[in-house]
Amino acid sequence: MHSRKIVLRLLVLALLAVATGFAYIHWSKGGDGAGLYSRYWSPDPVQEYWDPKNFYQSTEIVEGVFEAKLCIQCHEGITPGIVIDWRASRHAQADQPVYCNDCHGSDHQQLRMPTPEMCANCHQQQHNELLDEARYGFPSHVLAMERVVDAPHFADKPKGEVQACVQCHSVATKCDSCHTRHRFDSAEARRPEACITCHSGPPHPDDETYFNSAHGKIYLQEGSEWDWSKPLTKGNYKAPTCAYCHMEKGRHQVADKSLWKFGLREVNPHTSKNRILRLRWIKLCTDCHEASEADQWLSGLDQERKQAWEKLYAAESILKGLRGDQLIHPAADQRPEYPMGSLWARQRIGFFEGQASAFYNVSAIERDYFEMWYFDNLGAYKSAAHGYAAGVEKGHKKMESSLQHIRERAELLRNLSEAELKAGVTAEQWNSGAYTDYNREHN
Amino acid sequence: MHSRKIVLRLLVLALLAVATGFAYIHWSKGGDGAGLYSRYWSPDPVQEYWDPKNFYQSTEIVEGVFEAKLCIQCHEGITPGIVIDWRASRHAQADQPVYCNDCHGSDHQQLRMPTPEMCANCHQQQHNELLDEARYGFPSHVLAMERVVDAPHFADKPKGEVQACVQCHSVATKCDSCHTRHRFDSAEARRPEACITCHSGPPHPDDETYFNSAHGKIYLQEGSEWDWSKPLTKGNYKAPTCAYCHMEKGRHQVADKSLWKFGLREVNPHTSKNRILRLRWIKLCTDCHEASEADQWLSGLDQERKQAWEKLYAAESILKGLRGDQLIHPAADQRPEYPMGSLWARQRIGFFEGQASAFYNVSAIERDYFEMWYFDNLGAYKSAAHGYAAGVEKGHKKMESSLQHIRERAELLRNLSEAELKAGVTAEQWNSGAYTDYNREHN
Amino acid sequence: MHSRKIVLRLLVLALLAVATGFAYIHWSKGGDGAGLYSRYWSPDPVQEYWDPKNFYQSTEIVEGVFEAKLCIQCHEGITPGIVIDWRASRHAQADQPVYCNDCHGSDHQQLRMPTPEMCANCHQQQHNELLDEARYGFPSHVLAMERVVDAPHFADKPKGEVQACVQCHSVATKCDSCHTRHRFDSAEARRPEACITCHSGPPHPDDETYFNSAHGKIYLQEGSEWDWSKPLTKGNYKAPTCAYCHMEKGRHQVADKSLWKFGLREVNPHTSKNRILRLRWIKLCTDCHEASEADQWLSGLDQERKQAWEKLYAAESILKGLRGDQLIHPAADQRPEYPMGSLWARQRIGFFEGQASAFYNVSAIERDYFEMWYFDNLGAYKSAAHGYAAGVEKGHKKMESSLQHIRERAELLRNLSEAELKAGVTAEQWNSGAYTDYNREHN
Repeated sequence: MHSRKIVLRLLVLALLAVATGFAYIHWSKGGDGAGLYSRYWSPDPVQEYWDPKNFYQSTEIVEGVFEAKLCIQCHEGITPGIVIDWRASRHAQADQPVYCNDCHGSDHQQLRMPTPEMCANCHQQQHNELLDEARYGFPSHVLAMERVVDAPHFADKPKGEVQACVQCHSVATKCDSCHTRHRFDSAEARRPEACITCHSGPPHPDDETYFNSAHGKIYLQEGSEWDWSKPLTKGNYKAPTCAYCHMEKGRHQVADKSLWKFGLREVNPHTSKNRILRLRWIKLCTDCHEASEADQWLSGLDQERKQAWEKLYAAESILKGLRGDQLIHPAADQRPEYPMGSLWARQRIGFFEGQASAFYNVSAIERDYFEMWYFDNLGAYKSAAHGYAAGVEKGHKKMESSLQHIRERAELLRNLSEAELKAGVTAEQWNSGAYTDYNREHN
Repeated sequence: MHSRKIVLRLLVLALLAVATGFAYIHWSKGGDGAGLYSRYWSPDPVQEYWDPKNFYQSTEIVEGVFEAKLCIQCHEGITPGIVIDWRASRHAQADQPVYCNDCHGSDHQQLRMPTPEMCANCHQQQHNELLDEARYGFPSHVLAMERVVDAPHFADKPKGEVQACVQCHSVATKCDSCHTRHRFDSAEARRPEACITCHSGPPHPDDETYFNSAHGKIYLQEGSEWDWSKPLTKGNYKAPTCAYCHMEKGRHQVADKSLWKFGLREVNPHTSKNRILRLRWIKLCTDCHEASEADQWLSGLDQERKQAWEKLYAAESILKGLRGDQLIHPAADQRPEYPMGSLWARQRIGFFEGQASAFYNVSAIERDYFEMWYFDNLGAYKSAAHGYAAGVEKGHKKMESSLQHIRERAELLRNLSEAELKAGVTAEQWNSGAYTDYNREHN
Repeated sequence: MHSRKIVLRLLVLALLAVATGFAYIHWSKGGDGAGLYSRYWSPDPVQEYWDPKNFYQSTEIVEGVFEAKLCIQCHEGITPGIVIDWRASRHAQADQPVYCNDCHGSDHQQLRMPTPEMCANCHQQQHNELLDEARYGFPSHVLAMERVVDAPHFADKPKGEVQACVQCHSVATKCDSCHTRHRFDSAEARRPEACITCHSGPPHPDDETYFNSAHGKIYLQEGSEWDWSKPLTKGNYKAPTCAYCHMEKGRHQVADKSLWKFGLREVNPHTSKNRILRLRWIKLCTDCHEASEADQWLSGLDQERKQAWEKLYAAESILKGLRGDQLIHPAADQRPEYPMGSLWARQRIGFFEGQASAFYNVSAIERDYFEMWYFDNLGAYKSAAHGYAAGVEKGHKKMESSLQHIRERAELLRNLSEAELKAGVTAEQWNSGAYTDYNREHN
């Protein structure tokens, strides 16, 4: 009797779960956009090129079904550059060439824009390696697009801005972020410039730090004379490039040594899991250096991180104190909420409570912390990781300044609040979001 | 009778106008300098090289009248580099070579420094194209020099600073800004580096944004192997350079697609005039891309600009509020006036009320706005225009910070003013210009 | 009688001085570190590679005494890159090759890491030139390491940060900062990238300013095609690189034309000594330019510096006023003292009273000054020195902003102090160093 009741209850719960699942799927597919907030945004037209699977729409200017010979004949006049690039590619020079219509289709009214899945028809291994990144969590290339469209603030922020996010995060949804059209050369992707269009500026100043490192300077001097058709293995290159270290031996898996989470949060670099990742780094460095030297550089990075986080936590602690005393305005409940964001309004301080892009509609002291964390800290981190000493110096000097300003601004907020109480002055409250209200109507 | 009176009046007015004109010409030619404020400044010596027509003075060290053979013989020992460059130039290799004295004269006591007008003796077409820019107004290359010397603050600001302005603005008054001495190669000017000495940093971070774009990264990787003797037409280059897009087919006319006014002011990109300029852009992009894709990128730029101006106007509006309540110090009438600046002192907020270089002798909150507008906004604009996503992100993040700080600083100024009133404290007023008084005596 | 007394006294003083000298030597050699504060710090492990003379410890993994043939045989498999580089070097190709063991020794348990003194066994002239720099004082390459470890704050600041200092200052204690392992090519060191790993960012933004100059842009365009085996003399290179001007004709002596002290302090550029240095510059410039033009550029730099220092002194003067009125907190005596720093606590404002790295544990307004001086001023200086106009503009615009903010922050501090006095509010005092207490225990 009792067990039948349990079985019944489980059955009801299971049915409810299935129904919720269907409802969810319906919901998430229900809007013009993609992802969790698909109903809150519609794709900006240019997004069809960045996320072709979800949004590409063939132009319907030309009618007809064409063989490659005709494609080439016509495009040699219209857009000769892409034909020249294709002719120079392995696609054109293979025994069984890959022609225009193999990727784009033949019906000019129904053209396709290649997705990673399509490229995987031939490049299965590389695609599998890319997919494999997912098990290391975010940051990752393969999860880049879903993480951006699934962020609650994606629907909040104005299109003109999130468009810039999508442009780089499209590394997950097309292959020509690294292998540009229509040569798709692996030689190109081996060179550091392949990465810098996205990997520069916050939150990953790799451009600014690699090219100023000892490795980078050797590349800048001599790179144009190296033979880039060679695989990324020891002895082939005088100095490593991005791909040499981060895509070891050309494997399309960048995350298998990822340890410091982009410098966005503090990590314990000596967990048993992270010790394995460290050993992978050291092993890689021994392509050219002594293991003990590599180990010491990593320890140097640990130290730099530790010191950076001491400064960041000092700043966070000041902010939390102010929040506790209700001195931060607009407070969490004075700000427009995220769509589906959470049941309770939350003030975000630091990574664990928020995210880089969530720092809007907040007070000036929170922005100060944001800049300290996002610009200066990340600059210091990447400098230390790439061995660019002057960048470490700059980052820490900036963090020292920021901490001091946060300290003094906090004191001012406290003094003013006390003075206002005594003087009976009430500060004007700002509680209408610069972004949210407007954008939810217009995006 | 009545009509005779009108004719007489017109005659008097015409005579007055002519007299004023002569007076004006006399005035503007009256000083050591050039332009409207010629009486308020004298040229810094190095300016003779940047504006040779107005200021070059031949060194008088060597006496004698020389033929080219002798120039070369002597300078091969003194300055061999310039002889090597000339020998490698088309000037030297032409059927009728262009020799030293063709440009510099033969009398060593009366040497000339070439002006655009002199180069036009042979390169008429290019010079005409350059002159043609004037009809598109400023910003332009051909008007660059007169706009800098005719700015009221040119005479105010210290020489050490305006010298830097003149150095780049000399693009109007000599040709070797882009074609360096003595090779004067068109191949050189086709490459992006030809532009970056001036086009980097505010107000035109083209260097920082082009090289980080997909176009720029292809150039950085492969550019050293391209054949730069080829004209800038489709199929000749895998990726476009500055000149490919902005000086289409090599035409020395950069302004014929200029639409966004450097990002310094808001424009309506869809006026009938601007729609024509847009179509010119799209047509150019179709050298390699689909027209619809180009159109979508332009729309993306429109959106980015719209959002940037929402932030900038929000900041301007705060400043105007403070000004209305007389909370900005030094106020316009507390500052030293421009020479001949205007009949009434004016506070400058934003482009329409002032100009980039006019933001001095002003309060801290006005500087905050200036930095938001001039550094962060322009960085975002050029990033969006050149397709450098991380730069758009950075620019907008910085603008968010700035807006929040301006908001809070304004609140503080209001609170302090109220508190001062209540407490009977009077703030010290700063009303002596850091620049103007001193410089007008010393420049 | 009287003279005997004096002799006796002198004898006693002399003996005391000798004793103090010995005590000092004992002290300075007494710790794990190096230099004056050797007792206050222990070397970070990676420092053994940067200051091998003091700290290198051979790895003891492999046992045995090996001839070069065996070194090469083994390392060709383990670290093929360094063998390839060595084979391409003059060391390998000389009539009497320089083998592995000539520099590193043969006993694998007692390996050496080369010091400048070791390189001097063959490269005596270059080493002498380097040593010769010392007579020009600091900044200099040869004194770089001792100046960093002898700075009182070296022992105070966290390892994670000073490690970055040591990395670049190791230019004094090893030769591969410029001639990278194991090719050690002079061609490499002639190219500007050899310098930028250290010479970028504050306090020497040479990277940012040279590459944006007219000289730099020519290098970027054509440098990869130049014959870098040629000596640095006129006619061999179309445009100068760092070494061309600063290490004239390849001489390893960078200081013999140093005049402006990195822009860190104001100099009178027209002392009789400095007039000699100026003439050296002008003479160098005449490799390509007229002497009068070079002279005018130098005058332009003088003017830029003068104006920069007017702004900096205006800011310093505000700070000194606040200090005089005891409005800067933490005040000098509220901060933890340097170890052996001085007998009296000192507040540091500007170069003469302190040093770049001494700007920590200070108030926000002092940090504002620091950023104005260290980031913006130095950017303007190096831009003017290298002829990068847009950088001069940016630096001065930033300095204008900073000065205005310092002015207003000072006013605020005064008003708040007055208001606090009236209202009986006492500001919280911050008097525990963020760095010092902690680090002295842990470094």
